[in-house]
Amino acid sequence: MLSLYSIKEVGNFAKVDIDRQKRRGIPEVVFAQGKTASETKGIIEAMMSESGSVVVSRIREADYSGVVSFARDSGWSVSCGQNSTSILIYKTAIKKAAGSVGIITAGTSDIWIAEEARLVCEAMGCECHTSYDVGIAGIQRVFASVHDMIEKDVDAIVVVAGMEGALATVISSLVDVPVVGVPASAGYGYGGEGSAALASMLQSCALGMAVVNIDNGIGAGAVAASISRRANRRR
Amino acid sequence: MLSLYSIKEVGNFAKVDIDRQKRRGIPEVVFAQGKTASETKGIIEAMMSESGSVVVSRIREADYSGVVSFARDSGWSVSCGQNSTSILIYKTAIKKAAGSVGIITAGTSDIWIAEEARLVCEAMGCECHTSYDVGIAGIQRVFASVHDMIEKDVDAIVVVAGMEGALATVISSLVDVPVVGVPASAGYGYGGEGSAALASMLQSCALGMAVVNIDNGIGAGAVAASISRRANRRR
Amino acid sequence: MLSLYSIKEVGNFAKVDIDRQKRRGIPEVVFAQGKTASETKGIIEAMMSESGSVVVSRIREADYSGVVSFARDSGWSVSCGQNSTSILIYKTAIKKAAGSVGIITAGTSDIWIAEEARLVCEAMGCECHTSYDVGIAGIQRVFASVHDMIEKDVDAIVVVAGMEGALATVISSLVDVPVVGVPASAGYGYGGEGSAALASMLQSCALGMAVVNIDNGIGAGAVAASISRRANRRR
Amino acid sequence: MLSLYSIKEVGNFAKVDIDRQKRRGIPEVVFAQGKTASETKGIIEAMMSESGSVVVSRIREADYSGVVSFARDSGWSVSCGQNSTSILIYKTAIKKAAGSVGIITAGTSDIWIAEEARLVCEAMGCECHTSYDVGIAGIQRVFASVHDMIEKDVDAIVVVAGMEGALATVISSLVDVPVVGVPASAGYGYGGEGSAALASMLQSCALGMAVVNIDNGIGAGAVAASISRRANRRR
Amino acid sequence: MLSLYSIKEVGNFAKVDIDRQKRRGIPEVVFAQGKTASETKGIIEAMMSESGSVVVSRIREADYSGVVSFARDSGWSVSCGQNSTSILIYKTAIKKAAGSVGIITAGTSDIWIAEEARLVCEAMGCECHTSYDVGIAGIQRVFASVHDMIEKDVDAIVVVAGMEGALATVISSLVDVPVVGVPASAGYGYGGEGSAALASMLQSCALGMAVVNIDNGIGAGAVAASISRRANRRR
Amino acid sequence: MLSLYSIKEVGNFAKVDIDRQKRRGIPEVVFAQGKTASETKGIIEAMMSESGSVVVSRIREADYSGVVSFARDSGWSVSCGQNSTSILIYKTAIKKAAGSVGIITAGTSDIWIAEEARLVCEAMGCECHTSYDVGIAGIQRVFASVHDMIEKDVDAIVVVAGMEGALATVISSLVDVPVVGVPASAGYGYGGEGSAALASMLQSCALGMAVVNIDNGIGAGAVAASISRRANRRR
Amino acid sequence: MLSLYSIKEVGNFAKVDIDRQKRRGIPEVVFAQGKTASETKGIIEAMMSESGSVVVSRIREADYSGVVSFARDSGWSVSCGQNSTSILIYKTAIKKAAGSVGIITAGTSDIWIAEEARLVCEAMGCECHTSYDVGIAGIQRVFASVHDMIEKDVDAIVVVAGMEGALATVISSLVDVPVVGVPASAGYGYGGEGSAALASMLQSCALGMAVVNIDNGIGAGAVAASISRRANRRR
Amino acid sequence: MLSLYSIKEVGNFAKVDIDRQKRRGIPEVVFAQGKTASETKGIIEAMMSESGSVVVSRIREADYSGVVSFARDSGWSVSCGQNSTSILIYKTAIKKAAGSVGIITAGTSDIWIAEEARLVCEAMGCECHTSYDVGIAGIQRVFASVHDMIEKDVDAIVVVAGMEGALATVISSLVDVPVVGVPASAGYGYGGEGSAALASMLQSCALGMAVVNIDNGIGAGAVAASISRRANRRR
Repeated sequence: MLSLYSIKEVGNFAKVDIDRQKRRGIPEVVFAQGKTASETKGIIEAMMSESGSVVVSRIREADYSGVVSFARDSGWSVSCGQNSTSILIYKTAIKKAAGSVGIITAGTSDIWIAEEARLVCEAMGCECHTSYDVGIAGIQRVFASVHDMIEKDVDAIVVVAGMEGALATVISSLVDVPVVGVPASAGYGYGGEGSAALASMLQSCALGMAVVNIDNGIGAGAVAASISRRANRRR
Repeated sequence: MLSLYSIKEVGNFAKVDIDRQKRRGIPEVVFAQGKTASETKGIIEAMMSESGSVVVSRIREADYSGVVSFARDSGWSVSCGQNSTSILIYKTAIKKAAGSVGIITAGTSDIWIAEEARLVCEAMGCECHTSYDVGIAGIQRVFASVHDMIEKDVDAIVVVAGMEGALATVISSLVDVPVVGVPASAGYGYGGEGSAALASMLQSCALGMAVVNIDNGIGAGAVAASISRRANRRR
Repeated sequence: MLSLYSIKEVGNFAKVDIDRQKRRGIPEVVFAQGKTASETKGIIEAMMSESGSVVVSRIREADYSGVVSFARDSGWSVSCGQNSTSILIYKTAIKKAAGSVGIITAGTSDIWIAEEARLVCEAMGCECHTSYDVGIAGIQRVFASVHDMIEKDVDAIVVVAGMEGALATVISSLVDVPVVGVPASAGYGYGGEGSAALASMLQSCALGMAVVNIDNGIGAGAVAASISRRANRRR
Repeated sequence: MLSLYSIKEVGNFAKVDIDRQKRRGIPEVVFAQGKTASETKGIIEAMMSESGSVVVSRIREADYSGVVSFARDSGWSVSCGQNSTSILIYKTAIKKAAGSVGIITAGTSDIWIAEEARLVCEAMGCECHTSYDVGIAGIQRVFASVHDMIEKDVDAIVVVAGMEGALATVISSLVDVPVVGVPASAGYGYGGEGSAALASMLQSCALGMAVVNIDNGIGAGAVAASISRRANRRR
Repeated sequence: MLSLYSIKEVGNFAKVDIDRQKRRGIPEVVFAQGKTASETKGIIEAMMSESGSVVVSRIREADYSGVVSFARDSGWSVSCGQNSTSILIYKTAIKKAAGSVGIITAGTSDIWIAEEARLVCEAMGCECHTSYDVGIAGIQRVFASVHDMIEKDVDAIVVVAGMEGALATVISSLVDVPVVGVPASAGYGYGGEGSAALASMLQSCALGMAVVNIDNGIGAGAVAASISRRANRRR
Repeated sequence: MLSLYSIKEVGNFAKVDIDRQKRRGIPEVVFAQGKTASETKGIIEAMMSESGSVVVSRIREADYSGVVSFARDSGWSVSCGQNSTSILIYKTAIKKAAGSVGIITAGTSDIWIAEEARLVCEAMGCECHTSYDVGIAGIQRVFASVHDMIEKDVDAIVVVAGMEGALATVISSLVDVPVVGVPASAGYGYGGEGSAALASMLQSCALGMAVVNIDNGIGAGAVAASISRRANRRR
Repeated sequence: MLSLYSIKEVGNFAKVDIDRQKRRGIPEVVFAQGKTASETKGIIEAMMSESGSVVVSRIREADYSGVVSFARDSGWSVSCGQNSTSILIYKTAIKKAAGSVGIITAGTSDIWIAEEARLVCEAMGCECHTSYDVGIAGIQRVFASVHDMIEKDVDAIVVVAGMEGALATVISSLVDVPVVGVPASAGYGYGGEGSAALASMLQSCALGMAVVNIDNGIGAGAVAASISRRANRRR
Repeated sequence: MLSLYSIKEVGNFAKVDIDRQKRRGIPEVVFAQGKTASETKGIIEAMMSESGSVVVSRIREADYSGVVSFARDSGWSVSCGQNSTSILIYKTAIKKAAGSVGIITAGTSDIWIAEEARLVCEAMGCECHTSYDVGIAGIQRVFASVHDMIEKDVDAIVVVAGMEGALATVISSLVDVPVVGVPASAGYGYGGEGSAALASMLQSCALGMAVVNIDNGIGAGAVAASISRRANRRR
């Protein structure tokens, strides 16, 4: 399960785990936030030399177009997340053989997180169905959206919700597939910055949901795609 | 608005505000938790000598039957809260002239809080309609309950909910009367002891709800009855 | 109570609940903070096509004058909150048929929150009486202000207070109408950013107050106006 | 997806959602902690009259043997969790048609939580493989345990860990099936009562894990079994 | 200012600072909570052999009468705090030469804390004026109490208040002597256990108050008596 | 004690309590942080028309020199705090008749807070003795500093300390005058932003210290000067 | 460094890491708190069959004498911690070849923690020098104690302190050997239960100290003995 | 141990403890963050006049090159930390006589903290071995790195890790030298800003590790070098 020597050194600042995709079915995601543009590009290069695709998340605004250009200039394709600073770089279109995932947000401001999840799901070979801005203040929107997901027979549902985060519980109470809750940092005051949504999802009275950290669309996508891939491994 | 001399001393441990019912329309509630049985009885006596009724909340288990007997032996009537350690003591039946309040709980373990609210509402002259255990894990229960409250034309709704507390938001999103949310301490782990429910209610995406503290059924009842009384002041 | 199909899609980023005003008596408020100016304008347009008015809150400073101009250029009237980034857009003057609300602040820096409440109350048809900077460090100011509110026979009082938030308790102890407390984020150090005021209001020893989240003037306005409207529904 | 009238009232304290098993594939679990023995028995009776099995969790120590006897005297079988106060009541042996789940704990004191998960998984038709006390202070234990789970081709792995909770991250870094982390309340001081383990799991540098609340073995079992059932729905 | 050798060893578990009364004017207080009755008695003995009095605080309920008897049997006088487990042991009546201190509580349940302060003040030679149960829910009580303190020309005022703790701010806004606030642990839910009162007092909008820790009547008494002693050092 | 009509309205944004200096001996301090320069100037003007001096704290950097100029141009004197954005405006030199206060800081970065305290003390007629950067990492500095304060016979000592805040406890253990602790926000990580220093001072094992909020030099100065004034009232 | 097969199974509830002493020089400590007496005894037996000694910590009061008897009846020697529920079981006296460690407490109530550290140090072959109850409220005690430790040339010092925990910083500022701080849970109110002491030690302005968790005497002993052993490895 | 008169005043803003290096073997580090460039330079000058080297940490970005130039222009050598704003200024190369320290980071973004530790270790005469970016998501990297440190026979290991911080526990479980854990602030959401890593390290199930505060590379270096120096004092 673990190859002891699958390490690729990048300069004196990074050691890439080139075995991860094979071992885990989940690609190593480049978290660009704490890195300089040149460090990020160096790591992208190292990873693309070993693999067919890479997800890069949280690229600093100032570096964003530079990183995209770098990838395109290197001859790779780039898929950009809507409202997001994450991208998927790939050599050839990734085959959608790992089932399908539904992705729902409570509000407009949560879309960038949902899109992080979508990019990871697509990198892992899943089809994605999205439905954005279906908060429970107008709960009729939720039923329409859930109905759609059930019709599409998704293997898992990612629900991104900030403020009181109740959407995740409501959806979980209505479906029979696993739900991955993502608390979003929308909201101010007590319980703001996603803490109410996180607490709400961990306290959910509806069984069948598990949770990732606040704003962690990448993590939610990886879990949902793992579930979906497992559900379709015999295809 | 304020009579500077309306103070009644009880022993050397209490100063009763005998003007409160008149000034505020809200009776002074005896919070028995930190008091000995004899202190509690002393204060009850002082208040009943000035007023027609008194609510006593959080009577210690060991003191409960003693306090009830004391009241009955004094010739007063006592109304006991279901699953609760709060009671309403009164001389003659209180007239229901201050409108009606709906009281809903998410679970069975929240009933004692709802009953505290009910006793205060009745002390303030409101009719109460209750619906207990309508958590959103089976959301069909919620619609039935809300429909009932709308039919009864309640002036305000108290919603008691623990764990993720989403019930308050769902109900608030469906009605056009003010909702008073009471976070309940049901729930363990992160967000337990009512903190998730409190955060959830304060972060509610549905406008029209205000909140009292965790497990504070007394406070919720007083607010709801104030609203209801105001709504019916011209009757 | 709930029309299952009352959804208006705006681009691929918003689903407006066009039924809300009718169902709840509370208009959907556009929370502009997490939205681009063009998204905000798109949603305003969608909502004004269905309704006579809309409140837009927390418009980013850079977008503020653009949004106001857009509204005026569309032929609508705009009412701006003093010291605030929230506005009320309306077609024809809104009738003041839903009673009156008192709005009080402890300090000068809390005014922007009070004004959010005022705009929502006016959108919902309430008359507003304001009294700003009556902190209890000079408690004589409080009595004058409360006396005034009682004279005006307001149906509910919104109290905005930061730091230790005691003003809400003091006012609540003096009046017989429901009080809606709004903790304000004024204050630094322990209990700063509104947390002391929130705790103080939830712990209030004076029954009859309910609370909304820190700085949530919009929410307070909606609750107070709901109370007031209910109190005047037979007019 | 939602039958509006599937509610079964039990006394005046509970409303059972009899449609849940059909709608969600997850049985309603009776959380006995806040209920009297007779309330618990009443709800068990109501649920067994509609279904073939029920899980009862967190039975108070004093009520435990009484509830077990009640179930056996009613002619049902009972499966008890090792070191736990949760039980599975069933009429006939539940078919293991929904795949298999691995359950691992870091310490001896976490076993009762793992057993809650096991009972729910078995109620949902999953086979369970357990490995207890494999904390990373002796990391050789982890590799042996993971190797075993991979050999058994489990569909999902539940990892229960207290203190620093690192076991969940280590396991997640080694496998290609979804991992459900359960922070356990073992541990004192800063980060005690499960909060370090929860934070650790939410911050995990290894993608592919989602989390339930502290000590929530029931929730973890429901998620893992949902994943497993989905992965085997075509069998 | 510091004698390097003024240490008295008691068994192998304590080292008494016999110089403290002389150096600081504040006696060493025996915090009995974490000690066995015999350890407590041993330390009392050691201290009384060097000094004329000693305060013993938080004596375990089971040890209380034993410690009191021990002191009386040793030929000393004992003054007991009302509702408190703290006592003052002294050889001859302590001269009241250090001015006077006012002590006020918001509720009945705060009296035990106020009494801790009183015992320390008396040990340090101050006269004490107490006024208990003057919470601001009936603010007329406050004015009467403050008026009384001003008349008595106290040198400092200790205010003990739980829940929202606003009493300390109100009193501080009315007087021209230093106020020492003591947050009391009365109160449950958010801000309970004294945290709201602490935050409220630290955030007080009325200058002139400093604060000691929650329930720390001993500390408040020491500060108030230090102030009073300083104010009367020329007598 | 309280004149009910001593209110001076400034525009529609402030109500100055012109009675405060007389009632409390503490001047109303203008907290400029949340105000525009013109609001600040308006309030200064209103207060100087009633009084001989005013302290203005936390003037925004951009407004600082403008406010100072405004005061000087109005013919008043201005005293500026070292490293601080607070100033004291006065007409004629304030008489030092209210005793003396010692002010000590643990580090260089705490000086601005100490200077806030100094300005308030001087406004209240106290002489100030300062000693800056005497942190206990080199405890010999502390003894020298304390020795100096004792020699000068100060009436109270303000100790400003960030990080672990132990300086306040060490000083308190050595002197016989009241100590006012001010936790400073110096420090990062756990316990950063002053929270460790606050906790440390509230938990102090040395009796005789009371505490104001983090960075609240103004509050500390007011308390220390109140103590000092009381101690010298017979002069 | 890691033997993959050094695991000893005990029943179905524990997997002992029999390689640890050899690999790490630190024995596996049996944390008895969450175990039944028979589980504890089983693990002791398994470990003693592989090793010459074992430390058992936090034995439940009810189990304490039974565990001690069991060990003695098995023919082993037992060393008991003063005021503690931890013991050291050994076959033959452990050679003191690993240097010496100083152990200091601020108060009497911290002794049980210090004794946990002492037992681990002795199990690891260190000599221990203890000095208990040297809190800084009488700082002359500290200098005497530190002087003694320097004379004895200890290799490391463990400092156990509750409340404000300043003792650790003061000692660290005076010595040139590593200091291991142990925050103790003595103390109530804000910063109580050891949180102030932890924050204080982590924020220490004196370099050269590292910290273990609140009340973790076992951990502190292991670190100090590791340091001492390293410092004497060439003996 | 303590020279009472070793104080060097710098302007009116600093008092340098010139005895520290001799007393403690740890140089006073200049924490530049809260100081102006000229204050920093003044303190550097004062310290270099008494000593052969000084570490300056957290120099503001804008001041960095100025401070470096100042040092070089003064004729001293400067060693800069990689990715860091800390520097080591020295007159002649510091002799490596105090043993060796291993420094490991989990990620690229933790390097600046590790470099702070390295500079302090070098200032104290230790050789440093670094290994950066060995996070446990690819645990094979850890074994390679630990193997290397064991081969080099380091006297102590500093482990810097953010997010879940599990690397410190894994390394601690494998080695027999003391480990100093440094939680790093990498990570967002719940447990972000280093709080999860801190909790994780304090809760570590592997004995033998002590912890410094979040991002405190300076403190970790000082502890590790103290250990190493002690271990090599007889060389």
